Amino acid sequence: MSTLANDTFLRALRREHTDYTPVWLMRQAGRYLPEYNATRKRAGSFLALCKTPELACEVTLQPLERYPLDAAILFSDILTVPDAMGLGLYFADGEGPKFERPVRDEAAVTKLAVPDPSDELRYVTDAVRTIRGALAGRVPLIGFSGSPWTLACYMVEGGGSDDFREVKTMLYRRPDLMSRLLEVNAQAVAAYLGAQVEAGAQALMIFDSWGGALADGAYQRYSLEPMRRVVAALRREHDVPVIVFTKGGGLWLEDIAGIGCDAVGVDWTVNLGRARARIGDRCALQGNLDPMVLMAGPDAVRREAIGVLDDFGAPGPGAGHVFNLGHGISQFTPPENVAVLVETVHAYSRKLRRPDVSAPSL
Amino acid sequence: MSTLANDTFLRALRREHTDYTPVWLMRQAGRYLPEYNATRKRAGSFLALCKTPELACEVTLQPLERYPLDAAILFSDILTVPDAMGLGLYFADGEGPKFERPVRDEAAVTKLAVPDPSDELRYVTDAVRTIRGALAGRVPLIGFSGSPWTLACYMVEGGGSDDFREVKTMLYRRPDLMSRLLEVNAQAVAAYLGAQVEAGAQALMIFDSWGGALADGAYQRYSLEPMRRVVAALRREHDVPVIVFTKGGGLWLEDIAGIGCDAVGVDWTVNLGRARARIGDRCALQGNLDPMVLMAGPDAVRREAIGVLDDFGAPGPGAGHVFNLGHGISQFTPPENVAVLVETVHAYSRKLRRPDVSAPSL
Repeated sequence: MSTLANDTFLRALRREHTDYTPVWLMRQAGRYLPEYNATRKRAGSFLALCKTPELACEVTLQPLERYPLDAAILFSDILTVPDAMGLGLYFADGEGPKFERPVRDEAAVTKLAVPDPSDELRYVTDAVRTIRGALAGRVPLIGFSGSPWTLACYMVEGGGSDDFREVKTMLYRRPDLMSRLLEVNAQAVAAYLGAQVEAGAQALMIFDSWGGALADGAYQRYSLEPMRRVVAALRREHDVPVIVFTKGGGLWLEDIAGIGCDAVGVDWTVNLGRARARIGDRCALQGNLDPMVLMAGPDAVRREAIGVLDDFGAPGPGAGHVFNLGHGISQFTPPENVAVLVETVHAYSRKLRRPDVSAPSL
Repeated sequence: MSTLANDTFLRALRREHTDYTPVWLMRQAGRYLPEYNATRKRAGSFLALCKTPELACEVTLQPLERYPLDAAILFSDILTVPDAMGLGLYFADGEGPKFERPVRDEAAVTKLAVPDPSDELRYVTDAVRTIRGALAGRVPLIGFSGSPWTLACYMVEGGGSDDFREVKTMLYRRPDLMSRLLEVNAQAVAAYLGAQVEAGAQALMIFDSWGGALADGAYQRYSLEPMRRVVAALRREHDVPVIVFTKGGGLWLEDIAGIGCDAVGVDWTVNLGRARARIGDRCALQGNLDPMVLMAGPDAVRREAIGVLDDFGAPGPGAGHVFNLGHGISQFTPPENVAVLVETVHAYSRKLRRPDVSAPSL
């Protein structure tokens, strides 16, 4: 492992002192960047881009060339694991991801097996190794996976959904079957994330994009509990910080902070000051600017980014904040507004830490 | 005003003693009922159905013929008010509602005027009068409107949206303009709901379907504050209970309970026991079964409905619970499962009130 030139992100996750608030953006390597679109075009398709380590590396590094971001995140798809299970991932034109063989019944669940990360998912660990080499210690590299529940949503629905009818019908009608499916997913996600760490990932993030679609009670049982098992399995083998992000999970912050993760990602519906009061002694927080602020121009970006930093408040002992959006950056984002955002977060958060500047009230 | 044969719903809203927990379902007159589809076909279109008081009355009463529900809700569309403002509401085949003339700039905002409910919206108050007559005091009739912010979303986006890019860009770039738009909407909604009460509505509900898309801070300013003005305007003229429902607003229950409404609607991400502990001394609660439970068959419906009732717990002095879904009923719902739901809520909630049955723990 090379020494990091900038370990601010990792120190914030460990709730250690940092000179400023580190920032990275979910989906920072993406369609709002013309250079990303050029590489994607060269790759031929989104999946080819994900499955070619050199190209995945190229796009992972693109946002770091433009902006002084404090972390890189592996460029990959959230559905690599069910794809490796043989469900047949494809992208229909102008639509989201789909599976040729959705998991709709007991026979399909029974057939599921944990994929070997060194075999079917080798292209991901190869990408991690390539990116780590190319980063040469500039900033840490984040590995990631979808959560067991979020993967289950796609696997059972066969694609995106706005009501989660199929997966919730299975959950409510056959809780036993749903639990079996989630157990396979939990083992697969743990093995997958572990392999990313072995390949060089220096932090991990679990994207629970659809946990917030679940009812209270069902969330704890079907989304949080499998994530707890993933985190526990990782802890047994690796010493790497883990961020858990349940979109729409603001009501459950205490529950999430209780599964052994290092940081909790929050979306923009959460007030960071109140979140810090609820869990700030146990976990760092990551978030939570509304990505749509980036549409509105530099003045709005500055004002709202400062608002997020003020909501968290002056960093004190044992508190950690990683600035991020509350969701992936929109493809319609003007790239110049991202520069304003990163500059504002760095500059204003340095000011927040200066003892001669009065601390903003929580 | 005729005397009500069943005023359980109104008493629960006032947090008075009831023999059982009243139940009604958002969108209870809807596409899951074959008789609704027959009437809609006769009407020719959804808008014709909304705009013909006799047909709106017919479908409003259909679910009451099937199930012993404790309230009726006016059948209408959420976008009648912006339609009456002249934005040109239409429904494209297989898509949601759209406006021919979205409100995208200062000139469009300046042109907006509060519609006269006795003129452009006369078909709604006529429907309320017709339904009240037809109900003949069986159960109370609920009038409703979209919230000022939710109407603004449709007005600015020109239809549904999954990222609210246009309306949030206006909000962050031109907060002054957004405030002017919301002030027109607040006055329009207050006048519209007041006219529904004068026509016979016995309770009111404000559907803030998209409040949960807002960031903390923006929600309080752009969704809650206009709703507070609506409730205050209604209070000055009328004595009728008001329910406020912000989908995805579980983090803001205390704020919502503070705007002077009688009940707060909550979606299924909220635990009713914890919600009651947070606001149960100030407002009744309405909710919150996941509508997808109704897909899973009678056993799941019974189990999950009992779970919701147990979460709220044994009703005590000063607490009120109206059972509902956490969102509108799905068009794919088997109607026989709704019968199981209503029967379960009535029967189990009577048991909960019997002193010889030990109260379930919160």
